[in-house]
Amino acid sequence: MRATVMYSAGDVRVENVPDPKIQNPTDAVVRVAASCICGSDLWPYAQMPATPTGRRMGHEFLGVVEDVGSEVSGLDRGDLVVAPFVWADNTCDFCREGLHTSCRHGGQWGLDGVDGGQGEAVRVPQAEGTLVKLPVGADSALLPSLLTLSDVYCTGHHGVVTSRVGPGKSVTVIGDGAVGLCAVLAAQRLGAEQTILMGRHKDRTDLGREFGATDVVSERGEEGIERVRELTGGDGTHAVVEAVGAEQSMHTALGIVRDGGAISRLGVPQYTAVPLGMDTIMKNVTVTGGAAPARAYIEELLPDVLEGKVEPGRVFNRTVGFDAVPEGYRAMADREALKVLIQP
Amino acid sequence: MRATVMYSAGDVRVENVPDPKIQNPTDAVVRVAASCICGSDLWPYAQMPATPTGRRMGHEFLGVVEDVGSEVSGLDRGDLVVAPFVWADNTCDFCREGLHTSCRHGGQWGLDGVDGGQGEAVRVPQAEGTLVKLPVGADSALLPSLLTLSDVYCTGHHGVVTSRVGPGKSVTVIGDGAVGLCAVLAAQRLGAEQTILMGRHKDRTDLGREFGATDVVSERGEEGIERVRELTGGDGTHAVVEAVGAEQSMHTALGIVRDGGAISRLGVPQYTAVPLGMDTIMKNVTVTGGAAPARAYIEELLPDVLEGKVEPGRVFNRTVGFDAVPEGYRAMADREALKVLIQP
Repeated sequence: MRATVMYSAGDVRVENVPDPKIQNPTDAVVRVAASCICGSDLWPYAQMPATPTGRRMGHEFLGVVEDVGSEVSGLDRGDLVVAPFVWADNTCDFCREGLHTSCRHGGQWGLDGVDGGQGEAVRVPQAEGTLVKLPVGADSALLPSLLTLSDVYCTGHHGVVTSRVGPGKSVTVIGDGAVGLCAVLAAQRLGAEQTILMGRHKDRTDLGREFGATDVVSERGEEGIERVRELTGGDGTHAVVEAVGAEQSMHTALGIVRDGGAISRLGVPQYTAVPLGMDTIMKNVTVTGGAAPARAYIEELLPDVLEGKVEPGRVFNRTVGFDAVPEGYRAMADREALKVLIQP
Repeated sequence: MRATVMYSAGDVRVENVPDPKIQNPTDAVVRVAASCICGSDLWPYAQMPATPTGRRMGHEFLGVVEDVGSEVSGLDRGDLVVAPFVWADNTCDFCREGLHTSCRHGGQWGLDGVDGGQGEAVRVPQAEGTLVKLPVGADSALLPSLLTLSDVYCTGHHGVVTSRVGPGKSVTVIGDGAVGLCAVLAAQRLGAEQTILMGRHKDRTDLGREFGATDVVSERGEEGIERVRELTGGDGTHAVVEAVGAEQSMHTALGIVRDGGAISRLGVPQYTAVPLGMDTIMKNVTVTGGAAPARAYIEELLPDVLEGKVEPGRVFNRTVGFDAVPEGYRAMADREALKVLIQP
């Protein structure tokens, strides 16, 4: 089958790799109907040192079950399923606590002999715990939105849940990428009163307004902090969702969080420390968030997607076939495309 | 009246200062029945640059109302009252959210013409919002425990509340000072299943065991991390209460927090940044806590103190009169005394 392999920064190839087969009785094999490129894939695309063996890419996909191991219950050939961006048994103590990203028997796509999502098929370990059945066909127009349950919509939701967004609360989302926009959508769903989106790409912030942003701030740094403070009577917002990962955006987050508020970190950190000195103690600032346990949220978020109440799939503004996956990476890296959908 | 004034590191004096008088209609004057020296007072005692005017000390006290302003309701001369370690109106939006440390009309003892607690009397701004009436006399044997509601017991409680301690949860308390010991007591009160106390002073950790610590770890640094991991099946604890403020103790906290867990910071930070890189994102670590809004907790914690169910006042192991306040500072700084009570 064909699959996406990255060899070094900027060098993404689509190659023939061995077809996946059941290796363990808890495996399933899924024929991918849709996958995508993640903002987090852009970090290795910018920085990865060369490796002769390459690295299989992709951690977001949905598709049709093609084969199941002998110990997998509840899944049958022909089922349409979505996979969260880490695989997990859904039964260990961490999974029961809703922290599937720390599953005792889980792992990441594309590592240790497990396929990546940006390929034609995937061997799914711990299939019964990992995959969630979708009650639509593979030709459904809902596929893009359902695919966001793999990662970006659940990740945005994780940001607003961990930063305690709710009715009457204000939130700032830093970053107008797909995760930031999904956080805006999730904040609206949870009843946020004021949602400020910080971003500089008008087409993206326009979508953010449609997703529920009440204000858009295009300024960065001290100017951006000043602007958010103006919009909040000087106080800052109860919640801040940091969906970039840069040192400057964490600095902004600390400058705009209201006393007693929480900053949820969703971006892959390009920093090693966060300035949390005496001022943050006096203000009772909480820093939370992290890799979203998407599997914990899918059942909760699925009904609104199926009913069309929310359309997180609108973050996809380009669709490519496998031949054009490298071009998809380039387009996302150059900020031409917001998020790229891959369809076989 | 006599009051405690610090002029520089190591230079604490008890001096005559003007008697407090009502200045605003929202003030009260309280004759201090008991006050104390705080672990946080030891930081200026170690480091404060010399100042010719000195700095009034003390932020924990209880006493008898001597005079009230014309706009103060609910308080009468002769009432025994306890003051939280910041004063607050108890009506603004922050106070209503339980964040009295960020009160819009509040402030700190000993600053801006407000008396400190380590004196014979105190003018209390926003008296109606700040002071909590105690249903005992000034001669009650409960005074030491009631005094801890000013700060250390409420601060320990804040640590375990913000780090989400509850039934079935495990917690590590770093630091065997009065706040750490009160956090142990508060963790037991909230139903923690395992409470590990990290400290090296046997008399203090012995009291910690009486307060509910299930394990004591005297090792520090990597050895201490290793030891806590051994005690928790390799996982670390759900909650960590950091009650020291040193860079090393934050490093320890990050090394022993369970995936998905929370570190509550209570210690005055002697660091400016916390190492929160990619590993803490993958582990979904939360950093929370801060200056405790003691006023928000007093009503909740008071009944158990009055009934003698908890005795946080056992953290006081030395009592001095005003003449011996400088000696009390020295004894605490030299770790001879755990916490020093001052009685007129």
